Amino acid sequence: VPRTAYVNGRFVPMRAAGVAVEDRGLQLADSVYEVILVHAGRLVDEAPHLDRLERSLGEVRMAPAMGRAALRCVMGEVLRRNRIASGMLYVQMTRGTAPRSAAFPPDSETTLIMYARALPPPDPEAVTDGVAVITVPDIRWGRRDIKSTSLLPNVLAKQRAVDEGCFDAWQVDADGFVTEASAANAWIVTPDRHLLTRPVSPDILAGVTRATAIELAREMNVRFVERPFTAQEAKTAVEAFQTNASITVVPVTRIDGVAIGDGKPGPITMTLVRRYFDYMSGGG
Amino acid sequence: VPRTAYVNGRFVPMRAAGVAVEDRGLQLADSVYEVILVHAGRLVDEAPHLDRLERSLGEVRMAPAMGRAALRCVMGEVLRRNRIASGMLYVQMTRGTAPRSAAFPPDSETTLIMYARALPPPDPEAVTDGVAVITVPDIRWGRRDIKSTSLLPNVLAKQRAVDEGCFDAWQVDADGFVTEASAANAWIVTPDRHLLTRPVSPDILAGVTRATAIELAREMNVRFVERPFTAQEAKTAVEAFQTNASITVVPVTRIDGVAIGDGKPGPITMTLVRRYFDYMSGGG
Repeated sequence: VPRTAYVNGRFVPMRAAGVAVEDRGLQLADSVYEVILVHAGRLVDEAPHLDRLERSLGEVRMAPAMGRAALRCVMGEVLRRNRIASGMLYVQMTRGTAPRSAAFPPDSETTLIMYARALPPPDPEAVTDGVAVITVPDIRWGRRDIKSTSLLPNVLAKQRAVDEGCFDAWQVDADGFVTEASAANAWIVTPDRHLLTRPVSPDILAGVTRATAIELAREMNVRFVERPFTAQEAKTAVEAFQTNASITVVPVTRIDGVAIGDGKPGPITMTLVRRYFDYMSGGG
Repeated sequence: VPRTAYVNGRFVPMRAAGVAVEDRGLQLADSVYEVILVHAGRLVDEAPHLDRLERSLGEVRMAPAMGRAALRCVMGEVLRRNRIASGMLYVQMTRGTAPRSAAFPPDSETTLIMYARALPPPDPEAVTDGVAVITVPDIRWGRRDIKSTSLLPNVLAKQRAVDEGCFDAWQVDADGFVTEASAANAWIVTPDRHLLTRPVSPDILAGVTRATAIELAREMNVRFVERPFTAQEAKTAVEAFQTNASITVVPVTRIDGVAIGDGKPGPITMTLVRRYFDYMSGGG
């Protein structure tokens, strides 16, 4: 259980940490956030997460609650006070508290929320079974490149997967192409051994772990191509996996009940799992 | 300034009313809400607002925080404690507080937030100038029939209107048809005197004021038709207006700078403004 959170200038016990009922994050999802993995006491890919946070703030025209140096200072203090060696750091900024009205308030101050949670460290040996996913229509808004808290469609997609005994849902656009999982980027390996993931656009979140995985894949003996692929193509893939910051690289071995390859995590996937683990353990 | 809010079983001073940082409404927009107009000490259209709240809860599979009779009791007490004769009552339910994870938590309890704000009563004489709107692409998610707090696209659309010196933004779908304003249903009167508004579907919120206005229009000497209309058709209309619960019927006299009719609120619109005012003043 996290013990100390940071909210608007103060470190407070987690049980007392909260926001006002007229906070725009709570009432209007007028807020952006990041989840950063903590491994061996270190924030993994801290700089690109902060880059993306700044980009999200810019896209929704929200003033940062503080400058980057100050933010990094508070982040370090949150980790220290909670003695987190392995887990995740959560950072959220909202457009502050004001009488409810859709337009930007004239003088609200950005709300900053930060806390950390201890979690077991990722273990490459634990993922050897892979996970099953379903496909669902992608009904999210048009700006999925902004990491906002407008996440109700993601919640409903993920829960539908859980209801069907699966780990996650791969969302599919109106043309039949996979966009991404509920909170992770989707990848496949085609029968002719091309590694594919969808190019960055407003249709998907530009995953930090996705970018790192691309770098790692480029050092591997694999032909990497950024292009969209359909749900049908995914089901005929020889390997599949998904990437995100909090659970890193997860092999996908069933899509809508169809076994991918021989139904076990493939060699390219498992090489990437291990390389990512090495990367976050110190190579990064 | 509102003085007393109700949060999770307790009446608390507004300045102290809040939710936890791991509330799913704040982190995931996993929440639904209603705004109900208070006029002459009475909740306008209370029953259909509660019907819609129950429908939204059902669609996102969230347990109500309490039964309808208890909820009405608390609503009355919030109005009484805040001595609201004219204003609005805000009711929000979230899927409770739990360690952040997209899937439904196994045992969270629904968060209930309620408060009221005093506002000047609507005045049919004050709307005689009408308002200007812009049109923007509708980039919201696919379930706009659920009154959820996933409202960031609505915020950005409304702010864009404000930036352009306009009152609101009419959102337009990929086929060129108007869906609705940022938080209000859109209506036009065609040159051959047909009153149009878009039929209810997942593309729009089924406005409570929209439904009441349809009833009132049926008592007027006007041919009412539920059908979609394009932004282009709206600009050639002879009258236009929008409806929602908090500001009721608002004449629209400019769309993207184009004057509607003679640039003043038209006779059908103003008849509806007055009939709605009579309705909420005691006829309803």
